[in-house]
Order: sequence, then structure tokens, then C-alpha cells
Amino acid sequence: MNLKKELISRIKKIRERMEEQKIDAFLVQKPKNLLYLAGIESGNMLLTPYEANLWVNELDYAIINSSFKDYADFNIFPIKDRKERIEGIKDCVRGLKPGNIGVENISFTYYSKLKKDLKPDLITSDIIEKTRQVKSEYEIRLLKKSAGIGKIGLEKAYEVVRNGISELEAVAEVEYAVRKAGSETPPFHEGALLASGSNASNIHSYASDKKIREGEMVVVDLGARYKGYYSDMTRTIPVGKLGKEEQEVFELVKNLELETIDHIGVDMKASEVYEFVEKRIRDSGYMLHHAAGHGIGLDVHELPSLSSDPDDILREGMVFTIEPGIYKAKKFGARFEDMVLLTWKGCEVL
Amino acid sequence: MNLKKELISRIKKIRERMEEQKIDAFLVQKPKNLLYLAGIESGNMLLTPYEANLWVNELDYAIINSSFKDYADFNIFPIKDRKERIEGIKDCVRGLKPGNIGVENISFTYYSKLKKDLKPDLITSDIIEKTRQVKSEYEIRLLKKSAGIGKIGLEKAYEVVRNGISELEAVAEVEYAVRKAGSETPPFHEGALLASGSNASNIHSYASDKKIREGEMVVVDLGARYKGYYSDMTRTIPVGKLGKEEQEVFELVKNLELETIDHIGVDMKASEVYEFVEKRIRDSGYMLHHAAGHGIGLDVHELPSLSSDPDDILREGMVFTIEPGIYKAKKFGARFEDMVLLTWKGCEVL
Repeated sequence: MNLKKELISRIKKIRERMEEQKIDAFLVQKPKNLLYLAGIESGNMLLTPYEANLWVNELDYAIINSSFKDYADFNIFPIKDRKERIEGIKDCVRGLKPGNIGVENISFTYYSKLKKDLKPDLITSDIIEKTRQVKSEYEIRLLKKSAGIGKIGLEKAYEVVRNGISELEAVAEVEYAVRKAGSETPPFHEGALLASGSNASNIHSYASDKKIREGEMVVVDLGARYKGYYSDMTRTIPVGKLGKEEQEVFELVKNLELETIDHIGVDMKASEVYEFVEKRIRDSGYMLHHAAGHGIGLDVHELPSLSSDPDDILREGMVFTIEPGIYKAKKFGARFEDMVLLTWKGCEVL
Repeated sequence: MNLKKELISRIKKIRERMEEQKIDAFLVQKPKNLLYLAGIESGNMLLTPYEANLWVNELDYAIINSSFKDYADFNIFPIKDRKERIEGIKDCVRGLKPGNIGVENISFTYYSKLKKDLKPDLITSDIIEKTRQVKSEYEIRLLKKSAGIGKIGLEKAYEVVRNGISELEAVAEVEYAVRKAGSETPPFHEGALLASGSNASNIHSYASDKKIREGEMVVVDLGARYKGYYSDMTRTIPVGKLGKEEQEVFELVKNLELETIDHIGVDMKASEVYEFVEKRIRDSGYMLHHAAGHGIGLDVHELPSLSSDPDDILREGMVFTIEPGIYKAKKFGARFEDMVLLTWKGCEVL
């Protein structure tokens, strides 16, 4: 399967959902949704049952035109600036006369502006995000490759995390290893998370010049990006001998991750997984402070959300993370996270 | 000036703008605006002329309570989940009875949901983003420190960029240097940009395994984050002897950056700077494909935008980048970028 066939198949799926939900045309504007449907991370796309119109700037036009020149389904228009783009879209809408236009969950200000510019009804819809949940074989191959690069980062973390090294020194080594192994970006927007001792109780901790010490747990959360696809995994590394409570929490979280992966089956509610993890952590006298996992693909965090929201159902072909964690404010934190592919047999760790 | 005094002075400015614009209460939800006003990157804040109410999760509550315990202006509430947070805000609004509530430019779906939950009028407003444009001495000190770390990355780039090294190898070295020098994150969300030869004509290029070759220009765009404050700077590094057109473009862009910095004065329109750069590039037979610069602070890109939009005026104390660039599709790219502080004497490069 090559990218061109992939795009055709994805557009077909979106058109099926548009028909189901009676959406006449869909204006795609979010970078990751454009990457999913047009293979490019910028521009605007108006998708109808018969046409795929793409507006991109002149530099991207030259790039796209050479890689997709025989992809006849796209009408590609080069544009100079925002004004030309909105004029192009308006002209197109005037010609096609859709009864309504689907849009992503854009900002309120931009929604109001678009509503004024385009005459038809605007319907906010997440059909693209929902479609992106189930991965193709092509995508699973790239996600596995991305997870493989992330794993090299974790191996480096086990090598460098030790008594006396600072968080910043350790994270620099880990990110260096991920990049050298071929990641298109550093791990995540804020880099790898590497937090030791009490710093690990802050879920959004930034690596600091704090030195790692004996008896501490070090949370290392990282990933890679390969051909657009992200990976995301976490290990908690004990340094020397842990105190009694830390040791108990360490084992609890580590085992809970594996039990949760075993627990999940096709067509289970995402919220049921959350409740499973939440109850186990509550029964042990702690609290769960974040979701039990999240979909991953062209975004680090995408649908489904394994949280208390009751909407998402886990389907065959979805790829998501499982990440139980326990944090004791100003004392310690522990988290384990892996990416799994859901198959009819259960979860396969990537 | 310490952070506590900083926060008090920032909240005072926001209250002045709220009064000017007849906003009775402001619900702050965007992480960087929370960081600006409450010193923490998550949670929710309801600001009124007399109260600053902050809802944060229980882990953050423990952290905040120890660093701000004597900061009496804040009412801080620990919350367990989203539901508790929205209930807390609703209760507070019921008690205060504001005629309207200012909100940031949140998503359409979330705006609609909030409007249903909170009875008063919701007014979308960018007063916080506008206030953040003018930096205090405290902020300028941190921005200078952040720029200093970024500079170490550029020095590393000049050292490693050479014939035969791959973009990925070079970018790994550069990011490693920035992290080791103390940056809280890798440069930007997607890492440092390091693009050679024809790759540099793609403004959003990801470093690849392409080898850098003699005669190519290599665009290196990077920065750091120090105590929340970003830096952002770009150099174009020529490898060996450039062709005639490349050499001309290289010098044109390099000189244009310096001329633009000299051209800018207090109270000039941001769009005037854009027009200055755009005209010079157009007169040379090329096109400007992006803004001529952007504000920088707690975000890499913030107001003002030095683009064709006519709204922003450049005021004393603003910090922004100047970044002319020329790109020839599938051939080459060149860009130079520095951060400047606008003073009554003109631009001071950070």
C-alpha cells in the first residue's frame, strides 16, 4: 500500500461519513487532518462527494505538484496569501452550492468570520478525528517503526539515569539518542519528560538542573515521530533501593499497566478502561489524576480518550496508549505507558 | 523584581483593560495566559476587579500552595476533575453576578458549552495577549538569558554543518547543545529546523537523512526556553562556495535583516515593517512567503504579528523577531532572524 492509495481510501471513508451525517461539503483546515487526507500539513481543503479541492501556498504547490501529479482526484490551487485563499474557497462554494459545510472544531472567532464569509450553514463535526482512530496496515507499520525509535530512547534512559546526573543532562542524552535513531522531531512538543523524586509528582514537570539521587523514582516519558506518526511510552526507573511506599507504588503501577492491557477487548467502552484503572488506584489509597490512555497517530494525543467521558468505544484497529500513574504531591510519581494495537484477540503491544 | 510582584503588576494591567472594555469578569483558560497571570500552566482562573479565583488539580494545588502561600490576592481551589471545576466556576459566577464574562478565543464547541453553563454574556477578547506584548524588565532579563542559550545552539550549528553530515545528525548535535546549555525544552514544538539545499525551500521542513553538500545553503532556525520564556533565531550557513544566485540571495537576506532592524521605530505599524521587507524582496524578483516577524515571550509566536494585517502598533518594550526569508521552490531557501527589544532609541538585538 502506498501513500497515494492510502489517501484515496481515507477520502472515501470521510465521504461515507459525510453522507451518513448529511454533510454536503467539508472544509478541512487543521494541519493533522490535512496531512491525513492530502499528505501535506498546511493549506485548506474543500471535500465534496465528487471533488477534493486543495489550496496551498506557492512553495507547497511546487512540492505537491511533483509528488502527486498523477493523483487526478485533487484540484490543486496555488495561493499567495490568506485573502486569496478565502476568495478561492468562496468562489468554489458559490459554484458548488452545498446546503451546509462541515468544519472542524475551530476557534469561536474564526467560526464567526467563516460564517459571515460563506453563506451555507456551518456544522462543527469531528468525523475526520473519529475516522483517524482506526489505523490501516500502512499506518500500523509506521507506528511500529516510530515505537521502535522511541524504544531506543528508553534504552538510553536506563543507561544514563543514575545517582548524580542532573535531569537536564540525562534528558539531553535521551533526546539525542531519539534524534540520532531517526525521529523527525524531538519527543513531544516540550521534549522528553524526565522527572526525578518529588519533581515526578508534577505531571507537567520540565527537566531541571536537579541532580538525580539514590532512592528516587525517575519518570521518563518520551516518543518519536516517523513519517508523521508519533510514539509515546513511559518507564519509571528506580535509582538504587527505594523506600517502602515507593517500592509498593512502583510495583503496583507496573503490574496495573499489564493487567489493564490484558483486560481490554474489542467493543469495550473507553470509559470502562478508565474506571478499571481508577478503581484499582483508589482501592490502593491513591487517586488517578489523568486519563488512563489516549489514541495516538498523526497527533501524540488523539481519539479515543480513555477517560471518564462515556462516548468512545474501543474498536479493532485502534492504536492507543495505556498509562496508569500514581503521584504523591511533593513526594514522588510513577507511571508506565505502552502503545497497543487492538485486535480481535485483544491488545498487541507495539 | 520577583515573580510575585510581577504577577500583581500583570493582574493590575488586565484589570485596567477590563475596566476600559467594560468586562466584568475574565475567565482565563489558556495555559500561557495562566502562566502569565498565575505562574502556573494549567487550571482555570476567574479574574474580577476585586478577586482572583484559581481552580487547579490537587497535585498542582500542593505545588502552588507552597510557592504562593503568602500571596493573599488569590483564592485557590483544589479540584478533582473537569466536572468539579465547571461546578466551582458556576458557583462563583452565581455569587458574583457579573453582567458579562470575557473569554479567550476558545473553540466554537467549547464556547457554546460554556455559554450554556454560565448565564452571563460571553465576550471573546484578546486583552491578555495584547498586554503580554509589552515586556517588563523581569521578562526582558529572562528573554535575554533564553536568547543566550539559543546562541549556543547556533554556535554549535556553525561547528557541525559541513559537507557530508546528514541533516538529522547535525540537528541532533544542535539540540543536544541547547539542552545541555539549560533549555527547559527542545527548540520549538517540532525541534530545531535544519534544512539544506532544496529542503530549505520548504518552510516547514523536517530534518531528514539527506546529506549536506558543498554549494548548499543550510537554514538553521532554533531557540530555547528559560523559565517559561522562549527565544527564536535563524542563521543561513553557506557550505563551501555558493552558486551565483544563492550567493546573491544569501547577501540580500542577511543585509535586509539588518536594514529592517535599523528601519523600525517606536509607534510604527507592524504592517509597515512587513511592507518594507515585502517590497525589498519583490523588487529583487522574489516573494515573501511568511510574516516579517512575530512577538515572542511565553509563546514562541505571540502578538504582534509583523504581517499585512494592519492592526498592531509597535510600542516601546515589545520584543519580537525580524525574519526576512527568500525561497525558490525545490532549489534553495535563506532566512536570517533575530529577536529585538524596541526602545525609544530603536531596536536592540537581544
